[in-house]
Amino acid sequence: MAPGSSEIRALAAALSEGRASSGDLLDDCLRRIKDPAGEGTRTFIKVWEQEAQLAAAAFDGAERSGEARSPIAGLPISVKDLFDVKGEVTLAGSVARDDSPPAACDAPVVNRLKSAGAVLIGRTNMTQFAYSAVGLNPHFGTPGNPWDRTRTPGGSSSGAAVSVADRMAVASIGSDTVGSIRVPAALCGVVGFRPTQRRVPREGAIPLSATLDTIGPLARSVEDCALVFGVIAAEELRPTDGCDLSSLRLAIPKGRTLEALDPEVAGAFTRACNMASRAGARIAEIDVEPLEAFYALNPNATIQAVEAMAWHRDLISRRGAAYDPNVKARIEAGDRIAATAYLDCLMRRGPLTHELDHLTACFDALIMPTVPIIAPPIATCERDEGSVRAQLIRNTSPFNYFDRPAISIPIHEPGSAPVGLMLVGGRDEDWKLLAIARAFETARNA
Amino acid sequence: MAPGSSEIRALAAALSEGRASSGDLLDDCLRRIKDPAGEGTRTFIKVWEQEAQLAAAAFDGAERSGEARSPIAGLPISVKDLFDVKGEVTLAGSVARDDSPPAACDAPVVNRLKSAGAVLIGRTNMTQFAYSAVGLNPHFGTPGNPWDRTRTPGGSSSGAAVSVADRMAVASIGSDTVGSIRVPAALCGVVGFRPTQRRVPREGAIPLSATLDTIGPLARSVEDCALVFGVIAAEELRPTDGCDLSSLRLAIPKGRTLEALDPEVAGAFTRACNMASRAGARIAEIDVEPLEAFYALNPNATIQAVEAMAWHRDLISRRGAAYDPNVKARIEAGDRIAATAYLDCLMRRGPLTHELDHLTACFDALIMPTVPIIAPPIATCERDEGSVRAQLIRNTSPFNYFDRPAISIPIHEPGSAPVGLMLVGGRDEDWKLLAIARAFETARNA
Repeated sequence: MAPGSSEIRALAAALSEGRASSGDLLDDCLRRIKDPAGEGTRTFIKVWEQEAQLAAAAFDGAERSGEARSPIAGLPISVKDLFDVKGEVTLAGSVARDDSPPAACDAPVVNRLKSAGAVLIGRTNMTQFAYSAVGLNPHFGTPGNPWDRTRTPGGSSSGAAVSVADRMAVASIGSDTVGSIRVPAALCGVVGFRPTQRRVPREGAIPLSATLDTIGPLARSVEDCALVFGVIAAEELRPTDGCDLSSLRLAIPKGRTLEALDPEVAGAFTRACNMASRAGARIAEIDVEPLEAFYALNPNATIQAVEAMAWHRDLISRRGAAYDPNVKARIEAGDRIAATAYLDCLMRRGPLTHELDHLTACFDALIMPTVPIIAPPIATCERDEGSVRAQLIRNTSPFNYFDRPAISIPIHEPGSAPVGLMLVGGRDEDWKLLAIARAFETARNA
Repeated sequence: MAPGSSEIRALAAALSEGRASSGDLLDDCLRRIKDPAGEGTRTFIKVWEQEAQLAAAAFDGAERSGEARSPIAGLPISVKDLFDVKGEVTLAGSVARDDSPPAACDAPVVNRLKSAGAVLIGRTNMTQFAYSAVGLNPHFGTPGNPWDRTRTPGGSSSGAAVSVADRMAVASIGSDTVGSIRVPAALCGVVGFRPTQRRVPREGAIPLSATLDTIGPLARSVEDCALVFGVIAAEELRPTDGCDLSSLRLAIPKGRTLEALDPEVAGAFTRACNMASRAGARIAEIDVEPLEAFYALNPNATIQAVEAMAWHRDLISRRGAAYDPNVKARIEAGDRIAATAYLDCLMRRGPLTHELDHLTACFDALIMPTVPIIAPPIATCERDEGSVRAQLIRNTSPFNYFDRPAISIPIHEPGSAPVGLMLVGGRDEDWKLLAIARAFETARNA
């Protein structure tokens, strides 16, 4: 596969032409998951081997009579451990949930994937309750970064990113509250897309923050993300190949988002910008006052802690000892926040969002490094989770507050440390953003 | 006028037939407002004498050529001091706002009244910032109850109710966060209607609680409330005369709402129920668990305090000394509430509302006394504001949390202490509730 081309389109064609079978694709994934030298055991909390084999066999049987429901039909896809699947207990990465009742029905996202004919291969590992972008999980283990296994894959959708990067699945479904899709995508060298919040239903997913949680795909190309997004959003697919870099007006926010970049990140970002400029894109560096106001207010920390604690109170009182102590402490901090401080964060959202929308109305996208640093060693993360976390989410977190679609695409050279470029679109302009990201991806790989 | 018949309809007919003029109606109201033996100075914070005279003259000029824009055209209507009127400072009953900038435009409600041709006569007195249903205002004075001037009119729309009861206006616009329309309507012997929240726009009204605030009319009959509601909600008028008591299925919630009733209230409520039963209505006493859960949680106190403090912080720090100390202390309590406690109140709203909807789906309305006690002496209120307040809002407050339309109609004998009957309808069934209330009103006055 050429980097950046749609693997899902290629596989769908191979399946329909009889050059491959769903069963074979599944076997390849299962083999990688079970490879004792691989990260399978830390990447998946549960593998649906039997169910997947039945689904693949059903697809292969039906495929011979010429049916294909969707481009993802017959393809192995993983889902974050956050989503309800009928009859299973949703752990959300934590055994504290192991005595909770099994889900009464599939989450709509799971249901839509199944209806599209996807072969669901398993539940991927995650930071417990999705409450950190660092990606550590002391109970189920931390999957090693595909580039360097001693480093973190990022989180909270750690297993989702590794399952895609290590080809244990064609795509995965994650959730993103302050960066939990985009951070591991950037650190693992895959594409991760956080849509506008309302586009993908959140029912049947354990919440971290009702205000900020968003569901989206991770995959190995922009078009693959678009195809999966179309399914989980139940939206008609729109073409993503209509955009050319030469017509784009892009903005780089000055200030915080460009500070303290690792040299690998600074280099890759500069090269990506230069490439876009050479292709004819107009790139402006602009002052983005509402972004500075965001950093001064730091609303997401407040909103997350309060909303998490309201949800977790009963479970912590019953099973607190089973929590990751770091996650538990952060949740419990929610009880020490004043209601008026919380409400201030919510009330300033509208005016600040309006201001940002106004400032950026003349640009097709904002661009910046997804994460200012390359994947840090797991040992460093364990020693100083808090400060690593602050770095990891610095650039991603504002766009949950401002509810902007944002996508991270790889821009590093093959073999070097993965670096992500984040493109941020206008609210609800999800398909346009996908087309812009695809134009970047195409130009880089040309 | 026969009690319960529509005065607005009668006046509109008199105007159109030339039996009355808008100028005469206005003069009658102005005379009552200026009567030194009356409550005008405590009922109005500002009288728009000149503007009203111009509006009346314009109507009378136009009326002669046969135009009438709406049933309320040419009729004097008062508005609570909470609403923006272009070029005026909105005090919300408090001089703490006297250095705030004048409103840049009319509140939509004010604009709709003007567009319908209403003659706006003045801004009515209120509890400062609407933050108490007792109705005291230490700065502008407390208007005396029309039945007994030594007693409170209730609040916070105190002046609105007195302006209607004392015929200083045909109708008034109030706001209701836990009972601020229905409580003064009940205590003053007029009709007060709290619509479903979303029906009447809240822009341009100083907020007390964004979650609970609702805007609605007070008038001297149900149909008059319906006509004004149609204007401020910008809804097509629907007939309110299609309902007959004999077809109604009504429910009285057992428990708290019937406790500790003043004998006048218990007597009037029993007589109203007996009348409805005799007319053929089926009345069931039912257990309403979500109502008991509401009382145990007491969410409105939490929600109001937090949301008020978030709005008032800057003003209190600048002009705190100008606040009613009782109101200020209650607002400041919002700063001592935990965010998770506030969020719990919001999160339980959906499930409890759903439960109530389910329990009451087979009834046309809930009925209960609007207020368990008759209007207490102002001296008692000043001595023990808190305990009087708790009694006054006990029955009204839940239906802001549950966002149900609710109306209070008078059910006392002429000359005795006013008593209100509250009818609570299904969410968004505002016109149906008005028709049910009108059926009660008609039967009582038959």
